[in-house]
Amino acid sequence: MTAVEAFAQFEATWRPQVEATLEALLPQGQGQVGQVEEGMRYAVLGGGKRLRALAVLAAAAAVGGEPAQALPAAAAVEVLHAYSLVHDDLPAMDNADQRRGQPSVHKAFGEATAILVGDALLTFAFELLGRLPALAGVSEAVSLACVRDLAVAAGSQGLVGGQEADIRAEELEPSESLLQAIHDGKTGALFGACFRLGARIGGGTEEQVEALGRFGQELGHVFQIVDDLLDVVGDPALLGKAVQADAAQQKLTYPRLYGVEAARQMARDRLDQALTLLEGLDAAVLRGLAERVIHRVR
Amino acid sequence: MTAVEAFAQFEATWRPQVEATLEALLPQGQGQVGQVEEGMRYAVLGGGKRLRALAVLAAAAAVGGEPAQALPAAAAVEVLHAYSLVHDDLPAMDNADQRRGQPSVHKAFGEATAILVGDALLTFAFELLGRLPALAGVSEAVSLACVRDLAVAAGSQGLVGGQEADIRAEELEPSESLLQAIHDGKTGALFGACFRLGARIGGGTEEQVEALGRFGQELGHVFQIVDDLLDVVGDPALLGKAVQADAAQQKLTYPRLYGVEAARQMARDRLDQALTLLEGLDAAVLRGLAERVIHRVR
Repeated sequence: MTAVEAFAQFEATWRPQVEATLEALLPQGQGQVGQVEEGMRYAVLGGGKRLRALAVLAAAAAVGGEPAQALPAAAAVEVLHAYSLVHDDLPAMDNADQRRGQPSVHKAFGEATAILVGDALLTFAFELLGRLPALAGVSEAVSLACVRDLAVAAGSQGLVGGQEADIRAEELEPSESLLQAIHDGKTGALFGACFRLGARIGGGTEEQVEALGRFGQELGHVFQIVDDLLDVVGDPALLGKAVQADAAQQKLTYPRLYGVEAARQMARDRLDQALTLLEGLDAAVLRGLAERVIHRVR
Repeated sequence: MTAVEAFAQFEATWRPQVEATLEALLPQGQGQVGQVEEGMRYAVLGGGKRLRALAVLAAAAAVGGEPAQALPAAAAVEVLHAYSLVHDDLPAMDNADQRRGQPSVHKAFGEATAILVGDALLTFAFELLGRLPALAGVSEAVSLACVRDLAVAAGSQGLVGGQEADIRAEELEPSESLLQAIHDGKTGALFGACFRLGARIGGGTEEQVEALGRFGQELGHVFQIVDDLLDVVGDPALLGKAVQADAAQQKLTYPRLYGVEAARQMARDRLDQALTLLEGLDAAVLRGLAERVIHRVR
C-alpha cells in the first residue's frame, strides 16, 4: 500500500468520526444566545477538509497511540481553525463574502454576530482542551501542555501575528523573510500545534513531539504555498470561493514573489526536506497526508 | 478596621503588583508583528480599576491562600476583560470611540488590528492559565480547572452570550428574564470565574469554590446595575467615556426597566443577599470590595 493509499484509508475511517465528534461537542444553540451558537455550528460544520484534525489523529498514531483518543483535541483544532476563518473573512479583514461555497458567517449572520461567533469558537477550543481528561482520558499534564501549545500557536507570535503580517505586507518592502513570517504564523504555527497535540496525546516522547511539531510547521508552509498557488491557478467551483483575491488585495505570496512554476518547485523541495523529520516513525499515513496537502485542488 | 478600610489597604498593596505582573507578562512587541502586541499593551495597561484582578487575589486570601500566588491568574482575567472591551468597542458592536479617557483600540490602531488585538488577548489569557504551574507553582489539576472555569465564563453561555443578548435586546420584548440573561453573561460569568480561580489557587475546598463563584456571579450583577446607572447619572470626566450611550442604542438596562431609584435599591438588596454567601470565610476584604463595587463612580 502506498502512502497516498494509506492516508486515503485513514481519512475514510476517521473523517466521519471527526464530523461526528464536532457535531456532538459543539453547543446546540440554547436559550437567548441561540444566534451565536447557531453561527458556531454553521462555521464549523459547513464542510472543510479536516486536514488539521486528521493531522492530530495521524500524529497520535505515528507515535503508537490510538487515534480515537485524539478526537476531542482534533475537534479543538478544527474549532480554532474555524474561528480564524470567521474573523479573517470580516469586512475589516479580507472582506470575503463566500467560504466553502456558502455565504461567510458575517454575510449569513451579520457582522456583530460574526465577531462574537469567532470569539466563542476561540474560547470553545480552549474549553475542549481543558476537558480532555474527561473527554479523552488524557492526563492533566498532557491536557495542560496542549492548552499551552495551542495558545502559543494561535497567539500574537503565531496565527494572529501571521494575519497581522499578511495585512501589513502591502505597506512593507516585499521580502523572503516577510513572506516566511506570514506563512509561519498563518499556517505553520497551527499545523505545528496539530502535530504536537497528536504526539502528546498518543504518548510520544518530548523528542517526538518536537520533531512532529517541526514537520507540521513545514507542512503548514507547504499548505500555504499551495493555497497561494490555488488563488492564482485554482478552480473557484472546486475552491468554493473567489480566486485572484490575493492579487486584488496586493497580498505578498510565493507566486507573486517567484512566479507559479518556481513556487511549485519550492513547495516540493520544502516538503521533501520536511519528510526526513519522519524517519524512525510509523509514518505512512503522515507521508500520504503530506502528498494530499501538496496535490490538493481545493 | 472596617471592611471598606480593609479593602482599601488590600488594594494599595496589591494593585501595583497586578500592574507590574501585567507589564512583565504581556509580550513586548517583537518582530514584524509589533502592532498587535503594542495594541495588546495599550488595551491592557491603559489604566482600569483592576477590580477583577483584586477579586481573584482576595478570593485566594479568603480561603487561606497567598494572594501573590494568584497574581498570574489575576493577570489572565484582566487580559480577558481587556479583550472583551476591545471587541465590544468595535464599530459593528458598540461603536465606542473612547475607553478610559483614551481613543479605543480601533480608533488608535485601526479596525483590523483591533480585531486581532482582541483575538490575541483572548488567546493570551489561556496561555497564562496554561503556564500557571511554571508561573505560580500551582498544580496541573488546578491550572486546568482554571482553564475550564474561564472558558465557560467567557464562552457562548457566558460573556459572549451576554454580549449577544445585549445586542439583540432591542429586537426583543423587554423583560426581567432577558435583563438577567444579559447581566449573567456580560458581567456575572466573568466575576464568578474570578472568584472561582482565586479560591482554587488559594487551596479552597470545592464547596468554597462554588460559594465564592456564586458570590462573584451576584457581585457581577450588582456591578452591571451600577454600570447601567452610571450611564444615566455618571460623570463622563470620571468615567473616561461618553454617557447616555445605552439610551441612544436602546439597550435594555435596570434604570430603563425600573427607573433610577428602584434600580439603586435592587442593587443594594441583591448585594446584601449575596453577602450571606461569605459566612464562615475570612472575608473582610471581599465585603469591602463589594462596597467598592456598589459605590463606585467610575
